[in-house]
Amino acid sequence: MGITVHKYGGTSVADPERIRNVAARIARAKAAGQDLVVVVSAMGDTTDDLIDLAQKVSRNPSDRELDMLMSTGEQITAALLSMALHDIGVGAVSFTGAQVGIITDSAHRKAKILEIGTEKIAQELSQGRIVVVAGFQGIDSEDNITTLGRGGSDTTAVALAAVLKADACKIYKDVEGIYTADPRIVPGARKIDRINYDEMLEMASLGAQVLQSRAVEFAKKYGITVEVLSSFSDAPGTLVCEEVNEMEDMVIRGVTVDRGEAKLTIQRVPDRPGIAATIFGAMAENNINVDMIIQNVSEDGYTDVSFTVQRDDFKKAVRELEEVASRMGAKGVTSDEKIAKVSVVGVGMKSHKGVASTMFDALARGKINIEMISTSEIKISCVVDESDADSAARALHTAFGLDK
Amino acid sequence: MGITVHKYGGTSVADPERIRNVAARIARAKAAGQDLVVVVSAMGDTTDDLIDLAQKVSRNPSDRELDMLMSTGEQITAALLSMALHDIGVGAVSFTGAQVGIITDSAHRKAKILEIGTEKIAQELSQGRIVVVAGFQGIDSEDNITTLGRGGSDTTAVALAAVLKADACKIYKDVEGIYTADPRIVPGARKIDRINYDEMLEMASLGAQVLQSRAVEFAKKYGITVEVLSSFSDAPGTLVCEEVNEMEDMVIRGVTVDRGEAKLTIQRVPDRPGIAATIFGAMAENNINVDMIIQNVSEDGYTDVSFTVQRDDFKKAVRELEEVASRMGAKGVTSDEKIAKVSVVGVGMKSHKGVASTMFDALARGKINIEMISTSEIKISCVVDESDADSAARALHTAFGLDK
Repeated sequence: MGITVHKYGGTSVADPERIRNVAARIARAKAAGQDLVVVVSAMGDTTDDLIDLAQKVSRNPSDRELDMLMSTGEQITAALLSMALHDIGVGAVSFTGAQVGIITDSAHRKAKILEIGTEKIAQELSQGRIVVVAGFQGIDSEDNITTLGRGGSDTTAVALAAVLKADACKIYKDVEGIYTADPRIVPGARKIDRINYDEMLEMASLGAQVLQSRAVEFAKKYGITVEVLSSFSDAPGTLVCEEVNEMEDMVIRGVTVDRGEAKLTIQRVPDRPGIAATIFGAMAENNINVDMIIQNVSEDGYTDVSFTVQRDDFKKAVRELEEVASRMGAKGVTSDEKIAKVSVVGVGMKSHKGVASTMFDALARGKINIEMISTSEIKISCVVDESDADSAARALHTAFGLDK
Repeated sequence: MGITVHKYGGTSVADPERIRNVAARIARAKAAGQDLVVVVSAMGDTTDDLIDLAQKVSRNPSDRELDMLMSTGEQITAALLSMALHDIGVGAVSFTGAQVGIITDSAHRKAKILEIGTEKIAQELSQGRIVVVAGFQGIDSEDNITTLGRGGSDTTAVALAAVLKADACKIYKDVEGIYTADPRIVPGARKIDRINYDEMLEMASLGAQVLQSRAVEFAKKYGITVEVLSSFSDAPGTLVCEEVNEMEDMVIRGVTVDRGEAKLTIQRVPDRPGIAATIFGAMAENNINVDMIIQNVSEDGYTDVSFTVQRDDFKKAVRELEEVASRMGAKGVTSDEKIAKVSVVGVGMKSHKGVASTMFDALARGKINIEMISTSEIKISCVVDESDADSAARALHTAFGLDK
């Protein structure tokens, strides 16, 4: 009998009634003959509520203690879902990440999974029970609780599907799949039937926050086909998989808007070899991921360096950068949280010319100023003022023929 | 440098501001040169809120999953208190019961501590850090999370004090110590300066819910002097210790009211050897603790057996007893949740006659009907109708000269 992994996000388990609905859905899948491992997120806004609490007791809560705190959210959902399953006569048992043996590195709040024990799960499945696992969390080699970053429950699900050699991995969300753009912003957005890993990776990392990037990387690495679908309907979702044939004539698969970053600039740094290493070394040491980087042309021996980081890391990054600036004799640091990154994504652009110029044209016609640009084989991103983000997304969706 | 164990109850950590106040209190103790281990309960009504959630997803949630659920409450407080300590520059680290190696048996919701690892705590203390431990919880030999029953955080604190050979164990509450009666019921109630283990044990088990019974048993077994005091003032509290000399002329130390029990009666059981074993064997198998037991005189070969259980176990007990009744050919089962147990406690009664008759007299004068009676060397308890409980307590407090 094949194993199927289900994952239910925070909106799908936001209250007791929804948890009971999820239990009913799982019971139907079980009755259809599948062995089931179910990964759950924290209920609704629980994680945000816990972070609020942390900020009320500390100006700068430590990452280790935040992980200790936040991991309770998923543990609560796991216990409740297991109870709801018992209540409709379905055998189930809940586990924390630690109990199930999800071993991670020690990078609190963005830990990476190193290995997963399968013995406990296999044993419970062989007893006919459904195994409910608290997502988003693991434990490091010193027994500290770690978390996998925003959306980390997706990664838990895909990683479990990989080690368990599952037949299917279904990620249940409050949307029916992956869209060509956020329907709340772009009214003409359409559901995508199939998308390949690389496109999904770019979409995920660019703010189409339907699947965590690391989950997609895992899926790609182990060849897991992931289905993203709605827990509120029975409509088919979007398949994230290796090859997507019918996409040949499709240049762009989707348009994304990412409001999750912020921009920092270190001004008038004396331009000598090693400045980038110093700046980004300091960021790396503090576990701050840097996304886009621009270094201005040097002028009278001085240069400006701008880059973007996740907003979660923004305060820490500004603090570090100010220290670096004073150490390097730079003029100072400016920063801007009110930015958005608008991107177009598609493997089709590899074989099509003119994608960049179509993009810049469309933005120019919309009188939208571009602050930073970055490109890869299958995506082009522009940083714009946050207030321009929605109109930029709509303009691009139309310009690339995604409407209708 | 000596180790001191502090324990803060749910009211003392009910919101972020109180958690910060507790952190400040701990910082002062640390500055006075103590190595500190701090045990915390769940914030305010968290445990009740979690149980409410459980009841919304399941009519009869399993004990294992309830433990999984409830243990998150203390974990949250531990993380927050650790953050609050960091925020005022005090090194601290939080641990769950599992992380600190609190190994229990597998009796979910009322697990007993079997052993506690001290290595991790000793290592953190040697680094100058304060160790914050989530109370109320442990882990069994199969890695399942267990909890120690209502008030179990007290037990965690005393058990840690025992294994760490702590100099002091301070249990911080929202009251200033142990009183001769509940001041909300008996206006003349006074704070007790010293009380011995056995008296405290009876007070605790009889509804003066200031210290969990098992915590007192632990303290007695290992000779730990426990101080019960307020986290909202600096007033001295009540010392719970081995010998209390000045008590010779004090017959009764306190009056307690326990509303936490319920009464069950199995009616007209065929009276043959082994009926008690059958009834109470069934309760024991279901981990239901039975308190008072009365068996009526047999009449035409039939008898009635009444007993009390914790209200938490009431539904389960009724279900089990109904099964036993049909198996034994009894007439049926009646039950009453609206009872209260009123008790007088004092080692002094060992050497004084007439305590029982003074008690029954006082209740009779108050026109209070006695439903069940039980006695031990140092306490006498009467079950009365719940609506009579307060006036019974006031009458007894006066009759034994405890007022003023």
